[in-house]
Amino acid sequence: MTDVPAVILCECFARDGLQHEPGVVPAAAKAAMLERIAGCGFRRIEITSFAHPKYIPQFADAEAVLAAVRPRPGVLFKATCPNPAAVKRAQEARARGRGPEEISFLVSASEGHTRKNLRRSRAEQWENVEEMARLAGADFTQVGTVSVAFDCPFDGPVPAERVLEDARRFQSLGVTRIALGDTIGSATPPRVRALVGLLRDALPEATFIAHFHDSRGTGLANCVAALEAGLRHFDTALGGTGGHPAGIAYGEGFTGNVCTEDLATLLEAMGVDTGLDLDRLRAAGLAAEALLGRPLHARTLRMGEAAHV
Amino acid sequence: MTDVPAVILCECFARDGLQHEPGVVPAAAKAAMLERIAGCGFRRIEITSFAHPKYIPQFADAEAVLAAVRPRPGVLFKATCPNPAAVKRAQEARARGRGPEEISFLVSASEGHTRKNLRRSRAEQWENVEEMARLAGADFTQVGTVSVAFDCPFDGPVPAERVLEDARRFQSLGVTRIALGDTIGSATPPRVRALVGLLRDALPEATFIAHFHDSRGTGLANCVAALEAGLRHFDTALGGTGGHPAGIAYGEGFTGNVCTEDLATLLEAMGVDTGLDLDRLRAAGLAAEALLGRPLHARTLRMGEAAHV
Repeated sequence: MTDVPAVILCECFARDGLQHEPGVVPAAAKAAMLERIAGCGFRRIEITSFAHPKYIPQFADAEAVLAAVRPRPGVLFKATCPNPAAVKRAQEARARGRGPEEISFLVSASEGHTRKNLRRSRAEQWENVEEMARLAGADFTQVGTVSVAFDCPFDGPVPAERVLEDARRFQSLGVTRIALGDTIGSATPPRVRALVGLLRDALPEATFIAHFHDSRGTGLANCVAALEAGLRHFDTALGGTGGHPAGIAYGEGFTGNVCTEDLATLLEAMGVDTGLDLDRLRAAGLAAEALLGRPLHARTLRMGEAAHV
Repeated sequence: MTDVPAVILCECFARDGLQHEPGVVPAAAKAAMLERIAGCGFRRIEITSFAHPKYIPQFADAEAVLAAVRPRPGVLFKATCPNPAAVKRAQEARARGRGPEEISFLVSASEGHTRKNLRRSRAEQWENVEEMARLAGADFTQVGTVSVAFDCPFDGPVPAERVLEDARRFQSLGVTRIALGDTIGSATPPRVRALVGLLRDALPEATFIAHFHDSRGTGLANCVAALEAGLRHFDTALGGTGGHPAGIAYGEGFTGNVCTEDLATLLEAMGVDTGLDLDRLRAAGLAAEALLGRPLHARTLRMGEAAHV
């Protein structure tokens, strides 16, 4: 695990992928999936959320999951933190030797989405993020997500300058990794290239992460565009799980994450090293389907053996 | 219908989309779908096949379907022809005033795929195509498809020079439109750009058509690459139907066409005029699902109303 692959996929199944699942997955089953995920060669793994169990019962077991998954050299675990209490829980877990190395915070680039999704104003959410970043200090690598970085379902198109402003603000707080959320899956390759180009030119020290949703089937096309614009980090989830599925804030409909199996297969076919074992990854995808009890969205799990050239 | 849109999608649902459906769809239902498809604004529509009913019972009604669909100025109907007898049927239908304007022939760029798919050698298939092209003469616009233009499931990677050779050979027979089949959905954006660039440079008079399969979820990414390499024609099917689904020559597994609803939505979002009415297209996609009695693969039919920005 010393060579750094050309691109780093962060496998988000265990957090983003499960966040909207109606049934709570037992901690042991999550841990087993996370061990399997780590065995595929991922360097970054979204492991859990420190959201309050009252709001997201799925992650009431955050500490238990962190304790159950074996730490591996060179593998970073990331946990999401919605508020300062969550950062404190992450620090306590860290103090016990089983905490995440990365924590992530979220803002929305539009006022409308902030209010609907977080039930406060952008100004209030930035105060919240500032407090979390201050509290986290040097304990963690900090990741800031800018949601609705392309379009807001309530306010419409989001100016690229707004995203740049948010990215600058994250950077000024010591948040070095910045994820660009295509929350409603409306980005297009030309827009991705334009935004990534603008951000990389303006903030060459920051590490940008594509966090694209596949609502319109454009996930892979947009990831290729981001790659060609110089981006090297991608958030994906086994089976295309997660994102904002049916009924969550945006009306009915599927709008999952980019599917890990399919993006990794494409990148490797392009000769872009992901550091992942594709056979193990497909096995992990099948395990995710078995765990959730339904077929998920990985096309590469359905294509048939003879299509493997 | 006088303005020519920037890109032309050929809607293949009624032929390629239905070819491997286990149940025969009645001619009246096909005609109703074709009327609906024409109403979306398509300029090229794959309407049927003149395959012998013994081999493909789904198209035993070819003449009936052609007779049932109202001709429209500016809309070309295309029919596939596997042999000279099929070309004669196309000519007879034409003589009755209800024939296709375009007919299409097929070769495979690999020997292995030709033998498995067509049960003859490449040399024999080229003789067959030559006879069909001679017979068709100036009666039709002729379309030549080069299958396995990227990889063959039996012989492995296909050299771009072989595809160029086949394209040249089609052109020498008066076949002016040449479709590039990514039969097992293994192309990648860089390979698409390379192949399309090579072909357009070598044969500037030919019209190339992307006929990509979405086996690995790369259909849209590859279509964007083809567009950026200067290609303007795309074969797609409502709901991503067709291609070579489960059990057909390549083992089990889904390997359908690029989904019309999703590609048209992406192109329009990129500001590329398709000439299509997206609302009617989505309605046509839902009608296709109702006709086949199952959900198909259009992501844009599942994304939820609020995701429409």
